[in-house]
Order: sequence, then structure tokens, then C-alpha cells
Amino acid sequence: MTPFSYHNPTRIEFGPGKENNIGQWLKDDGIENVLLVYGTGSIKNNGLYTRVIESLNLSNIKYDELSGVISNPVLSKVYEGIELARSTNTKAILAVGGGSVIDTAKAIAAGVKSEGDVWEYYLGKSPIQSALPVYTIVTLAAAASEMNGNSVITNEATRQKYSIGSVLLNPRLSIVNPELMQSVSKEYLIYSASDIIAHALETYLTATDHPHFQSRLVESIVKSVIELTDRLIEHPEDYHARAEFAWVSSQALNGLTTSGTGAGNWPNHMIEHALSALFNIPHGAGLSIVVPAWMSWYQSKNKEQFERFAKEVFGKQSAEEGITMLKRWYGTIGTPITLAQAHIPKERIPDIARNAHALAVVWGMGEIYSVQDIEAILEKA
Amino acid sequence: MTPFSYHNPTRIEFGPGKENNIGQWLKDDGIENVLLVYGTGSIKNNGLYTRVIESLNLSNIKYDELSGVISNPVLSKVYEGIELARSTNTKAILAVGGGSVIDTAKAIAAGVKSEGDVWEYYLGKSPIQSALPVYTIVTLAAAASEMNGNSVITNEATRQKYSIGSVLLNPRLSIVNPELMQSVSKEYLIYSASDIIAHALETYLTATDHPHFQSRLVESIVKSVIELTDRLIEHPEDYHARAEFAWVSSQALNGLTTSGTGAGNWPNHMIEHALSALFNIPHGAGLSIVVPAWMSWYQSKNKEQFERFAKEVFGKQSAEEGITMLKRWYGTIGTPITLAQAHIPKERIPDIARNAHALAVVWGMGEIYSVQDIEAILEKA
Repeated sequence: MTPFSYHNPTRIEFGPGKENNIGQWLKDDGIENVLLVYGTGSIKNNGLYTRVIESLNLSNIKYDELSGVISNPVLSKVYEGIELARSTNTKAILAVGGGSVIDTAKAIAAGVKSEGDVWEYYLGKSPIQSALPVYTIVTLAAAASEMNGNSVITNEATRQKYSIGSVLLNPRLSIVNPELMQSVSKEYLIYSASDIIAHALETYLTATDHPHFQSRLVESIVKSVIELTDRLIEHPEDYHARAEFAWVSSQALNGLTTSGTGAGNWPNHMIEHALSALFNIPHGAGLSIVVPAWMSWYQSKNKEQFERFAKEVFGKQSAEEGITMLKRWYGTIGTPITLAQAHIPKERIPDIARNAHALAVVWGMGEIYSVQDIEAILEKA
Repeated sequence: MTPFSYHNPTRIEFGPGKENNIGQWLKDDGIENVLLVYGTGSIKNNGLYTRVIESLNLSNIKYDELSGVISNPVLSKVYEGIELARSTNTKAILAVGGGSVIDTAKAIAAGVKSEGDVWEYYLGKSPIQSALPVYTIVTLAAAASEMNGNSVITNEATRQKYSIGSVLLNPRLSIVNPELMQSVSKEYLIYSASDIIAHALETYLTATDHPHFQSRLVESIVKSVIELTDRLIEHPEDYHARAEFAWVSSQALNGLTTSGTGAGNWPNHMIEHALSALFNIPHGAGLSIVVPAWMSWYQSKNKEQFERFAKEVFGKQSAEEGITMLKRWYGTIGTPITLAQAHIPKERIPDIARNAHALAVVWGMGEIYSVQDIEAILEKA
């Protein structure tokens, strides 16, 4: 095993109704007021907003609101949040929503404490030194943002979808109530499945070290996601499957699977960020397009692990068969596997590759993936 | 999945030479002085003690010492440590050793902050409210004490081997350098293997809920421990295997495997604590005696999960075959599987059962396991 640091201080409170305690838990931590961050209003339609406000009121937690966070969340909303949080002297950020809302909350938490422009962090120019505590109530299982210190934000002006990661941004407390996820559409379920599988596979397939136990962890995640997604397509109301899906989702990107592996790198996310920065497609949809193409392009570089994947996850012998099975499964559940299915014209491949390569440079992969490599991968999609 | 809380704030620094940073890391946390707790001197023979002291000196961390912690650590040593820590106004406890040393350090950390007798916590009379921070440098992988909030202490006066658990006792930082474990004897390797497997299996087999992913986690742990132990018996110097063994050991009892399972209960540990309280045998040796006997006695109560265990871990069809395979493997590696092998006379079974039942009451299992049940289990050993 390669030397590593592992530190995940996030407390998870998991189960029905746990969100009703948020006020008390904030109070226990000495928090007097929060900035409540949410999306485009679904939490008002399903009653969650009311329950959260009631819980805050009951514990005398004051709050201000920042609503309107969208998928592929944008930097302008982060700036708005920072300004609001500063003006109200907020003590913590409370995110109620999915990965986009939580990522926005983290960006605000870091930005409030930063003297410079928060975007500098995303450009990799300096590490985060301090952040407000973040609390979350999760409504979509995919990003694992509720259990890690990552945040991905799109700068609309520059079409850069970039990320930061710091243990200072790990939520102090995340509430996961699977009942809140029972109304997630089939569309978002399958994109989530694609996202979780990509989180698990990227480093599994690119790591420099492959401890068996770490490989088993990843294979367990992928097998469970496949089974649970199939189950939830048939039975969206199945609480048990929703719950396990949510938990597995958190495990796929909380630092556990990469420990001791040398951590690998993130070519699929790198390329996908370009796709959704330029075409605003759902992250999971972009990943199911990129992942099989990249796997096919990359397999010979880590043949043994690709064969292991084929065998352990699908009971197949060759690397090629493993990739085919995964791609076929993506097709079965209905998430796109070609650029054409996402209405992205082939002619735009050079633009996508250039955008992706700029991110590769920021992520320290600029030497590993040339613009031509990225084009070659995209040609396969 | 059953509702649960998961919170493991322990930071792990894993890899060769990491212990040389302990002084700096304590300083980063604002710690000025520590109570250094260790065992019977092996850290002085192998140079670890010197390296730790040098690191503390380099960062101007003052220290006092408590040495002489033994296996099945005792309450009198805890009292000695509490007195010493109070007299020196220590700011943190630094444990350098295996599970016994870490468990002693945690007991001192809780005791220093307690107005009453620290043993009251172990008797379950009141929950811990506060504790000094604990730092660890681990030299034996088995107990997972480096990554959980548990502490097991034996009260020599009353022959009670009892335990506490609180997130307040999770080490703030644990340093795991697998090189330090390369000199662990075969004897302690196999007892450690038995301990880790018991940690993973107890709740897997007694839980009220069995999410597939959680079951896969446990099966991955057991399969890896078996493979790695076999490897290390042949090649004790294999760094990679030592490293993975250490990491898997931490995963087996850090709150991960039990999340969402309803958590089950701990009959094997309950009975083993009585064995080592009365006969002072190594914990892992006691567990390899109790576990197969208990499995055989209990299997019909959770047939499906026992069958799953047999199939997933050993590729066998029946619950009985799974138990036989595990017992046979214990025999192969050389850890005892009968009371006779540990020189415990059959005539003492009633004494053991009474001692174990007293602990069952403290652990809330007094109604589930009668003295007669425990005798029946022990008869099978």
C-alpha cells in the first residue's frame, strides 16, 4: 500500500425524519445563525423546507436564504452567497439539496473566509486555510459531497468547470434521509448511478497500487449500484434500496476507496467537466458517455486490473468483455453512451478536448493526457 | 437499512516513517505536553522509543512516561496513569503500542476528566462527557483501537473485563507504520487474525438488517484477512501484506461495517472477555475458541446469513460447511479451537458462564443469553 492520509470527520445521521433535529444539532454546536442554501424550489413543494424552518425556529437558530442553485452550479451564485453571508455575519452554511447545492455551500464557506477571490482556489493557485462549518440535508445520492471535502463549480464567464478539495470543507454534519430520495426521477437515478460508478472506477483503474481489499471495496460498490439501480427502476418506492443506494454513494467518494492505492487520477471527470461546461448536460449523463470510451482507450495500460474488473463485477474473462457489459448496462438503464445521444456534434470534439486539457493542466494531468489523446478518447464515443 | 449515526473523526497517517512527524503534528494541534504510554519495553529494543522522543524534543513537546502496560490491560495501571497525568497537567495522551496500550491511554484520557471513578464508565453507569485527546502510534494490528472510540480494561480485583465506547475517545490522530509490524510474531499474527475476523463477523451474523453492501464489506474483510494471514505466515517480511493487514484491521471495527445493520450484538466478545479475565489468555486465542462454538450453536437463528457467509467466503453451500471451513482454517494457522488447547478445564465452564453473563447484563444481552446458553456454547468448545 502506498503511504496515505485518511481523515473524514463528517458525522452522518442517517434515517427517516432525522432532518427534524437539525435545529437542535446546530444549537448543540453553538451555531446561532445559518445561511440556508437550496435549489429551485422542490424542497418547498415536498414540505422539506417547512420542516427545516420549523426545526430552526424551535431552536432559535436565525437564518438567511440563498435559493436558485442550479445543476452544474455557477460561480455567480457563489459570489452572491458570499456577499449575503458576510452581510449577515453567518456562523455556518446549511445546504438542503443535492450535490450542486452542497458544492455551492462549500464554495461560500471557503469564500467567506478568503481575502482574495474564491475562484483562485479552484484554479489551484492557493490552498484553503479556513472555512465556515457546513451542514447538509441531502436530497439526491450521487456526488458524495455530503461526505467529502470536494466542491465543483462552473465559472460561466470562462466556461471552466473546476474543483477544490479540502478536509476543511467536509461537512460537520450530514443528514441522509432516504425517504427524501424516493421521489427522485428515473432520469436522475440513472445519472446518479453513472456518477457513483465513475467515482469508484476512476482510481480503481488508474491507481499505481491495487491492494486486494481496496479493489474488493470498489467492486462491492459497483455491484451494489448495478443491483440497486435495477431494483429502483422497477420499484422507485423501495425504501431499503434507496437507503442502500444513498450509503453506497457516500462510500464511493469519501476517501476510503483510494487509501493506499496511490490515488490514481481522474481522466473521465476531467473530460466530462468539459462536456457539461460547454453543453450543460447532466454530470452523470456525461460520465456514461466518457467512461466506456476512456476504458476502451486505456485498457491496455492496466490490463490486469481491467481483467479483474471484468471477472469480479460481471463474471467475464477479458477486459473487453467487462467494458462491453458496463456499456450495455448503461444502455439498458437508459443513460447515454454516445455523444450523439446527448446531441453533441462530433465537430465539437476539438473544442471539448481543449477545454478538458486546460483542466488536465490544473489537475496535474496535462502531461499524461494531450489534447490529441482526449480527442482520440472522444472519437470512441 | 436501519437508522444510524456514523462519526469517525480519527485522522490516519499511514506509511513508513510517519512516526517521525509526531512532534510536529502535536505542535500543530497546540499540544505542549503529553503522557507517553507504552508497554513492557519492546519499543525500546527496536528503536521506536528513541525516534518518538527525538521527534517530541525537536518540537519542544514535553513528556512524562507511563510504561508497563500488559496484554489484557488492567485498571490499576489506568489509575496510575490518571494520577500521573493530573499531577503533570498533561494536555494529551500519546499511546505507542498495540490495542492494550491504546485502550489504557483512552481510559486515562477519560479518567483525567472524570470527577468520579473511571470504572463507573465501564460498568455502564454513566456516559463519558469529556476526555483528553488521544494520539497513537500503532505497533500491532488487531484491535482497531487506533480507529475507534472503544477501550477494554480488566479490573483485576473483581475479574471483570469490561469496555466503553465513545466518539470522544476516538484518537485524534493515529500513525500506522506497517514496518513497525514486520517483527510481530507468528503467534500474535494469528491471534490478531482471529480478533479481526470476530470483529467483522459478530454483527454480520447477529444484525437485524443485512444490506448487501454491508455484507460485502464484511466478506471482503474476512477474505482479505485469511489471504493476508496465510501470506504473512509464509513471508513475515512482506511489507505490502503487513500494510493491507493493518488497514483491513482498522476497517473491521471503526463503525463502517455495522452502519445500517441495526448493529447486532457481541456474544463472542462477551464470552471471550470472561475467558481472558479468568485465565489471562490472549484475546484472539479466546475468540478462535469461542467463535466456531457460538456459530454452531447460533446458526439456525440466522440461517440465511450463515449460508451467505459459507458461499461468499468459502464457496460452500451450507451454513455448516462455512463454519467447518473457518474452524479448519483456525486449526491450520495454529490458533486454538478448543478450551483444552488453551488448558482451560471443562469443569470451569460454569464459572466462565457466570462471569460472561454478568457482562451480558452490562451490555444489555442478559435476556438474550442465559447462563445456561453460555454453558451450552462453551460445551461445544
